[in-house]
Amino acid sequence: MFRNFKTVPYVVFGRGCFNQLDNILSQKRENPESFMVFMVDDVFEDNRLRERIPAKPRDLLLWVNVDHEPKTEYVDRLTSRVREFSNRLPCGVIGIGGGSSMDLAKAVSLMLTNPGTSAEYQGWDLIQHPAVYHVGIPTLAGTGAEASRTTVLCGPDKKLGINSDYTPFDQIVLDPELLSGAPLDQRFYTGMDCYIHCVESLTGSYLNAFSRSYGEKALDLCTEVFIEGGPEKDDKLMVASYLGGMSIAYSQVGICHALSYGLSFVLGIHHGIGNCLTFDQLEEYYPEGVEEFRRMMEKHAIKLPWHLLSAAQEHEIEKMVDVASILDPLWENALGPDWKKIMTREKMRDLYACLLRQCQA
Amino acid sequence: MFRNFKTVPYVVFGRGCFNQLDNILSQKRENPESFMVFMVDDVFEDNRLRERIPAKPRDLLLWVNVDHEPKTEYVDRLTSRVREFSNRLPCGVIGIGGGSSMDLAKAVSLMLTNPGTSAEYQGWDLIQHPAVYHVGIPTLAGTGAEASRTTVLCGPDKKLGINSDYTPFDQIVLDPELLSGAPLDQRFYTGMDCYIHCVESLTGSYLNAFSRSYGEKALDLCTEVFIEGGPEKDDKLMVASYLGGMSIAYSQVGICHALSYGLSFVLGIHHGIGNCLTFDQLEEYYPEGVEEFRRMMEKHAIKLPWHLLSAAQEHEIEKMVDVASILDPLWENALGPDWKKIMTREKMRDLYACLLRQCQA
Repeated sequence: MFRNFKTVPYVVFGRGCFNQLDNILSQKRENPESFMVFMVDDVFEDNRLRERIPAKPRDLLLWVNVDHEPKTEYVDRLTSRVREFSNRLPCGVIGIGGGSSMDLAKAVSLMLTNPGTSAEYQGWDLIQHPAVYHVGIPTLAGTGAEASRTTVLCGPDKKLGINSDYTPFDQIVLDPELLSGAPLDQRFYTGMDCYIHCVESLTGSYLNAFSRSYGEKALDLCTEVFIEGGPEKDDKLMVASYLGGMSIAYSQVGICHALSYGLSFVLGIHHGIGNCLTFDQLEEYYPEGVEEFRRMMEKHAIKLPWHLLSAAQEHEIEKMVDVASILDPLWENALGPDWKKIMTREKMRDLYACLLRQCQA
Repeated sequence: MFRNFKTVPYVVFGRGCFNQLDNILSQKRENPESFMVFMVDDVFEDNRLRERIPAKPRDLLLWVNVDHEPKTEYVDRLTSRVREFSNRLPCGVIGIGGGSSMDLAKAVSLMLTNPGTSAEYQGWDLIQHPAVYHVGIPTLAGTGAEASRTTVLCGPDKKLGINSDYTPFDQIVLDPELLSGAPLDQRFYTGMDCYIHCVESLTGSYLNAFSRSYGEKALDLCTEVFIEGGPEKDDKLMVASYLGGMSIAYSQVGICHALSYGLSFVLGIHHGIGNCLTFDQLEEYYPEGVEEFRRMMEKHAIKLPWHLLSAAQEHEIEKMVDVASILDPLWENALGPDWKKIMTREKMRDLYACLLRQCQA
């Protein structure tokens, strides 16, 4: 059986297309009593973008904080705030920000129509009811959250996405102008999420011609943006992120993402940074990718923040291994069906120990 | 304003995925009285594929003939046959075949819910009501009909698509195994539809980073398939066709397609062949593309069927010019906003005259 891949059905792309959001939403506002929920990265609270958000007086605007990776408990709290605001469902949830903000919007749109707590739905195809109409608007590019069928959350005992056909956005608004304000290092780490997941999927065993085409083009665009430079960098990075997300249709990420999940869960390290720290240590598995990644770092004068690992205690490695080791599809994609013989807990422990030693170097 | 691009929301890709069709449709069969309409290229009437079509006893199977390009009058006749079959709407229309068969299925699914004749809807966004659920299954690759928001029809006075957000399929089933049976020349002409529309969109003025990425990848895949050869040719060609269709989101075709429409309308020449005959004469406008196209022809020992033009009468050139000249977006994309000063009716007449002279050469 091949996956019947659910795509985002409406995509608008272009410099300044954020200005069309009001018009797009107006077609979904059912009557004068209906309302929308805007979930916006609180980094924009004192930003010019704030004035451009087309919220109406009846709408709910939630500033979301993504200093930490999104937690299931935070999703549940935000969902409660929407329920307290009105006893009706909103006619839309709009996420504006990076991958974390978009994932929060996806998760809240699902939890408004599905009972219980979001942690109960971490996994594959556990969601029973369609989500509220939801829109994604990236202000950082690289995660692929705008195109994917998951919303990645840290739960009480694992970091795992809510994967379902109801998870993808109903509409995305891809405006490259929104990328221009991001700090350079954050832009780099997020862009590398795309680069790394393309390397992992293109070298993986799950690949087919569909996903390979998307992955190759996304990788080419990353290289253009981060090595060759040249015009339209933000446009290309935004497209790379979307194509990278699409490439996951028939592929999977690999060793870097699996280990990075453990770092995020235990130390709260952001996904993009966790990926970069991890990938830099995986020369044995992805020699060409790591070599090119280091050239990109050099070109952009990136110094990896190894100090973020200094808080880690030796005994926390066990928990990291717990989180990473349940991600079967990632390991199988990277190492084949016999991955458990190759990547023992012992070996994972070694990889984490090696990583943690870097902060002392 | 940027186009809010409607994509196909469900895509399944893989060798043998045609076998999943029954399962996919079963989720749309509402009750024991509901029925599906299969519209299948009649070339498969005596083919093994016939046995694999998952039609139930209550379903309607229509063998469609696409020896000629799809006509609005044929669409109306097929729609009537569905209405005569049942006074209920079908719960799905499934098109199996090349671009023409898929376009017929798209058109019938629209006309079942929209009053009047299909000719009334040739144009942009004239459709008022959502179509019946419709599924596209290509057995030839290159047209991009599986991904596009149009169904191209020859009407009483023009060849023009029914372009609307309701036109794209709700589901496509991309099984590269289905490509293997096509005659080699037909496979080539249809593949060139993708190659040519990529050349036209990549050299056009409408392009942005989104469409460029899709177009470049589709073009690369065409080159791999038709010049380099190598493994997975059918898989790559099927992906190229889909990506080529997606690339039209923010681009347009150009001179070749515009002139080819005139040939099809007046002489009934199939779109793929019409494109190839025309493109071969457009060295002045697409020098690199035409040069590579000729290398592809040489490699595949293709002799263009110039004799198809021998039926043309001198006076019919006026009608060809009529059909081509109303395609403003195509000309503007190719030649810029002042295209009417460059591409006068006189110049179009010359291009057609030059083309028709080839059949005497």
